[in-house]
Amino acid sequence: MTRLFFLLFIGAFLHAQPFVEDQKKIKNFYDTSLLEGQSYEWLDYLSNRIGSRLSGSLGAERAVAWTKSVLDSLGLDRVYLQPVKVPKWVRGSKEFARIETAPGVTFNVPITALGGSVATPSVGLKAAVVEVQGIEDLAALGREKIEGKIVFYNRPMQANLISTFQAYSGCVDQRYDGAREASEYGAVGVIVRSMNLRLDDLPHTGSMSYGDQPVYKRVPAAAISTNAAEKLSYLLKLEPNLKFLFRQQCKTYPDVWSSNVIGEIKGSTFPNEIIVVGGHLDSWDLGDGAHDDGAGVVQSMEVLRLFKATGYKPKRTIRVVLFMNEENGLRGGNAYADSALQNNEAHIFALESDAGGFTPRGFSFTCADEEFAQVESWKPLFKPYLIHYFEKGGSGADVRPLKNKYNVLAGLRPDSQRYFDHHHAENDTFDAVNKRELELGAATMTSLVYLYDKYGLVLPRTNSFAR
Amino acid sequence: MTRLFFLLFIGAFLHAQPFVEDQKKIKNFYDTSLLEGQSYEWLDYLSNRIGSRLSGSLGAERAVAWTKSVLDSLGLDRVYLQPVKVPKWVRGSKEFARIETAPGVTFNVPITALGGSVATPSVGLKAAVVEVQGIEDLAALGREKIEGKIVFYNRPMQANLISTFQAYSGCVDQRYDGAREASEYGAVGVIVRSMNLRLDDLPHTGSMSYGDQPVYKRVPAAAISTNAAEKLSYLLKLEPNLKFLFRQQCKTYPDVWSSNVIGEIKGSTFPNEIIVVGGHLDSWDLGDGAHDDGAGVVQSMEVLRLFKATGYKPKRTIRVVLFMNEENGLRGGNAYADSALQNNEAHIFALESDAGGFTPRGFSFTCADEEFAQVESWKPLFKPYLIHYFEKGGSGADVRPLKNKYNVLAGLRPDSQRYFDHHHAENDTFDAVNKRELELGAATMTSLVYLYDKYGLVLPRTNSFAR
Repeated sequence: MTRLFFLLFIGAFLHAQPFVEDQKKIKNFYDTSLLEGQSYEWLDYLSNRIGSRLSGSLGAERAVAWTKSVLDSLGLDRVYLQPVKVPKWVRGSKEFARIETAPGVTFNVPITALGGSVATPSVGLKAAVVEVQGIEDLAALGREKIEGKIVFYNRPMQANLISTFQAYSGCVDQRYDGAREASEYGAVGVIVRSMNLRLDDLPHTGSMSYGDQPVYKRVPAAAISTNAAEKLSYLLKLEPNLKFLFRQQCKTYPDVWSSNVIGEIKGSTFPNEIIVVGGHLDSWDLGDGAHDDGAGVVQSMEVLRLFKATGYKPKRTIRVVLFMNEENGLRGGNAYADSALQNNEAHIFALESDAGGFTPRGFSFTCADEEFAQVESWKPLFKPYLIHYFEKGGSGADVRPLKNKYNVLAGLRPDSQRYFDHHHAENDTFDAVNKRELELGAATMTSLVYLYDKYGLVLPRTNSFAR
Repeated sequence: MTRLFFLLFIGAFLHAQPFVEDQKKIKNFYDTSLLEGQSYEWLDYLSNRIGSRLSGSLGAERAVAWTKSVLDSLGLDRVYLQPVKVPKWVRGSKEFARIETAPGVTFNVPITALGGSVATPSVGLKAAVVEVQGIEDLAALGREKIEGKIVFYNRPMQANLISTFQAYSGCVDQRYDGAREASEYGAVGVIVRSMNLRLDDLPHTGSMSYGDQPVYKRVPAAAISTNAAEKLSYLLKLEPNLKFLFRQQCKTYPDVWSSNVIGEIKGSTFPNEIIVVGGHLDSWDLGDGAHDDGAGVVQSMEVLRLFKATGYKPKRTIRVVLFMNEENGLRGGNAYADSALQNNEAHIFALESDAGGFTPRGFSFTCADEEFAQVESWKPLFKPYLIHYFEKGGSGADVRPLKNKYNVLAGLRPDSQRYFDHHHAENDTFDAVNKRELELGAATMTSLVYLYDKYGLVLPRTNSFAR
């Protein structure tokens, strides 16, 4: 025990010296965010005055205009919109669903259409139900047990995983691919257990895809609340021949134009090295998208505001990008990366906040080992703020297309325990965000962006940053 | 950078080997807590069926009886009540307060009597107000500016401190000592800004003390919500002669008998070495005390249940103690320690959970350096569960009287950002507790108790554990 202690002590000492200035700067970011932060007030506006902002909706366009006006007020060197063509899917009237265990014996249950799904017939779709624990079960059941039925995907998120995102990853194929796969066995519709670790009455939407499935094969898909999923499963054991009726009127329209919103501070020394910080401006249409991803949007804007407010003049170009259409298309992230490539822009670091406005724990990174060693050497700077999580493994969907051999991508990692209680559901609302937790996240992001701005990348690199 | 890496790697490797069995055991605790935990269901009962449980109240006695019955059901070796004489303070009817800026121009504001305070006259107390930023300001103002007035303590919790407990410590003297001090300058009453970092409309109660001040000098004291404190301060700038009227009917009755609730598993190898895990059973009378400290109560009971459920037979005696009267007297903690001393019991380790049922981050410790080195060597075992905080500095109020030269005291340290949003207020309720966060805390406590049970203390020690 003593030996480890000694080694740790020496390690800490070696690193303590050069960081005094950085310690002060970082404390300044945290103090300013917690004492005079703007992020919470901005989130209030975005959540309560604008509200939900699904790609192609009026809310999305209002969010574009308003965030641009906020960036315009910050005294940046450049603020502009980047045109992006986005899908337009509209939910229509509220969905309806019920379980019928016998003629006249019915139980209404809460569902929500999955994003991208087709509608049911206007009178609804009624069929028997076959419950499965995942797509893998379909082949074993075979067409004869599935044809003409509604497939009910009921594999729950695994509660003993500490990262709820890992639990989500282990289930979300049911939502995304479930309808397409079930249709190949003759299913007429799909009901998916909501991606939620809690037992409650809120259905959680999210994107699904038919891939290139011909239109006549596309069956409607909806999510059901976890409580109702438990009930349906239980009733199926009592009455395997029960019927499920659901009705939804959602529709996909032709693509429409929207925008990424971008603001930048020009670098004083290396203006051609670009650092991106961002979140996504679109949200699902339930709730007001305060956690997903209003939090990431206001935190990213706050990074640039904190630089201005604390008088920090970056050496490199710092760009905030509010991406459009992360939820159902990733058109904004792809458009931004295409443009970066076309303009031969050198993106050395990109950070996304898209995991909720909860207490920040650290970051995950996609980068080379040498770059990861540098970021790990910065860990002691974050310790006073209880930021401890620095691990390889992913960044954010919108910044991922920026990856090349040289650069570093990162994602803010807040505490994940409550995230899926709200994710894509009508309780993803402003009141579920804590002011201090949001502000701590903004300061944490600012500190990492500051370090990359100051120290740059460690790896030797060419001038080309082409992917 | 590379050198630190190498050292860390060696350090990690040296420690990885002996811990394989511990890793398995700890994973088993987490899995069982998250998949088949009882803590959340227990907290539901304690919060929603029993509710608030201020010392001397019916709720407190129901909580004693019910938790004893739960412990009785766990198959422990011994379950018993330990008599404790506790203070009995009763709030009476709901308080009333208003600001009068001119005759007939009034603003009602939310207040709550501080625990231990005397009542106002039955028609209320009305006086001019002098605002101060702390007890230190009283001497500068002097008797002439204070006499006959209500002193309004308005120093807010410091928002840029990362630990909200530190921010609390920096303010709570206003609440605890404010009335006694102000009375010495002739104040007729005291209003204290609620210990809350948020701006909202909920007043937060908590204990205050007159010390040995003679009865005729004791003035009534109440907490005011943060929003109303801001309003009062603002109106005082506009109208320094405004009046404040408040009415409260609280009263202190003679002490009554209550109990600590205790259960234990007898150690198989060292039955005379005792490990305590606990929380406090009493709560304030607003809300239902789910975070303070229902969470600590059910987590502590869960530690013993998880040992049973996973088939772990402790070498040392593991005792759960549910302390009565932490909030306004600490009689339970003192009575337990007195009894331990009297029976010459060797308490080697005591852990309290009394900082809310939020995501656990780690522990704080009161112990010798050699003992702290041992606990730090266990850190890698907790890393998969994102438990990273192991620092010296405090344990818990109830276990503190157990301190002696040899043993280790610890407190669970959950994420603190939301704690004071709920602390001692009517929104400290079950719905503010997240099931997973509570269960992670229970598993984290169980893992540390397991390690102390398995490895014991490192310091040489005599048989005597006298303080």
